[in-house]
Amino acid sequence: MTYCVGLLVDAGLIFMSDTRTNAGIDNISTVLKMKTWEVPGERFLCLMSAGNLATTQATISLLDERTVAPSERQPAILSQPTMFQTAKLVGETLREVISGASGPQAQTPDPMFSGSFILGGQIKGTPPRLFNIYSEGNFVEAGEDNPFFQIGEHKYGRPIIIRTYDRKMSMAECAKLLMVSFDSTLRSNLSVGLPLDLQFYERDSYQAGLRTRITGEDPYYKTISAGWSDALKSAFDALPDFNPEAWAEHEEAELATV
Amino acid sequence: MTYCVGLLVDAGLIFMSDTRTNAGIDNISTVLKMKTWEVPGERFLCLMSAGNLATTQATISLLDERTVAPSERQPAILSQPTMFQTAKLVGETLREVISGASGPQAQTPDPMFSGSFILGGQIKGTPPRLFNIYSEGNFVEAGEDNPFFQIGEHKYGRPIIIRTYDRKMSMAECAKLLMVSFDSTLRSNLSVGLPLDLQFYERDSYQAGLRTRITGEDPYYKTISAGWSDALKSAFDALPDFNPEAWAEHEEAELATV
Repeated sequence: MTYCVGLLVDAGLIFMSDTRTNAGIDNISTVLKMKTWEVPGERFLCLMSAGNLATTQATISLLDERTVAPSERQPAILSQPTMFQTAKLVGETLREVISGASGPQAQTPDPMFSGSFILGGQIKGTPPRLFNIYSEGNFVEAGEDNPFFQIGEHKYGRPIIIRTYDRKMSMAECAKLLMVSFDSTLRSNLSVGLPLDLQFYERDSYQAGLRTRITGEDPYYKTISAGWSDALKSAFDALPDFNPEAWAEHEEAELATV
Repeated sequence: MTYCVGLLVDAGLIFMSDTRTNAGIDNISTVLKMKTWEVPGERFLCLMSAGNLATTQATISLLDERTVAPSERQPAILSQPTMFQTAKLVGETLREVISGASGPQAQTPDPMFSGSFILGGQIKGTPPRLFNIYSEGNFVEAGEDNPFFQIGEHKYGRPIIIRTYDRKMSMAECAKLLMVSFDSTLRSNLSVGLPLDLQFYERDSYQAGLRTRITGEDPYYKTISAGWSDALKSAFDALPDFNPEAWAEHEEAELATV
């Protein structure tokens, strides 16, 4: 499995991905699931992947090859006019790979080869945009009402994002939020693993922001992981306890007024 | 879908279940997923169900019928000597129902009819025990290292239980913990819905403890739901923000010492 999150905020885009890959639970390794391209001053793209690793790697390799030699192998990911066209190209390449892996006899793509992507970035003259691209090659875009995407093992880390996300957050606050969300997931599910990759993209910068790999030994990660447990316990303790007597009285009062 | 949790603590057992059932997203209703039996002074049993509603209701009806007329229809759920034998009877009845629904031609049970249960309770002379019973009729028991079970849509509400559970918790604290866990799930997933059913069982009481149904209008539930959002935000704000500059320095320092 995998866990990746892309957040769209006023300040820009923030991406985080884990690095665990497994074929069976006794065949675990570390793999990069975050790929970036940039033309400084013109565009920045970040692509995070989940699903069948052969599929997602092949898709990225194709996109990459076609970028290196754009004259012969159009269309190149770095020559698309808009982020929408970029998402379309990623989706089409993904569908091409899955269709190839399924074989010429397959009536429909084999679900075994499915994969998905989060794509975010900005091209000069257009705003930052964030997309969730499906196995079928189609995609949805983040907006005011759904300003973030998660792919992979997304459930454990979702409640904290839902309750805390605010589009006015700074990049630093977003990084903290993502670390908490990933830490909750890591503690609950073995198929998501450290280290984590973090990428900042600042609005209108048209170049990669901070990029770092977070291991379990990083002091900040350790502070967040331990601090969040303590903070949660304190927050929990501060809530009023359930009072069975009051509850019984409340129920009787309700019955009395029926 | 469904969300049910059973907790084993020193003080006894606590059960909570949601009430949403759906056949398609436009066919939603409310159903009780928590069934109790008791012989005051001798035994108390609580059974929570997830999965195919026809399967779990038929299983409970069979267990219930055989309890009402034990002389003709042995074995009765209230005449088992131990909680282990009780869990075995529930598992066997569940398997019988699934096998019947799958039809006589089926080589293996049809997964469409699968269901699962959390069973907890105590029989005089033995300690309180908690089991998770699978479609196949087999089951696992809660112990020191896994003192709670969740069935159904369990992922959203799991991190808070993992971080907060302590077997020394009072029944009232457990009720608070379960409300937070359910609230996190309700906010993330439409297939889990209010009202919630709550059941206390106090160790060595051999009778049902407090039983109540929690609606969205209950003052305590509203306090917890709103209070937890605020408490989470405060806890999150209290953690140190990610500092990109310090991070860059830390990385350089690491490189320098390699």
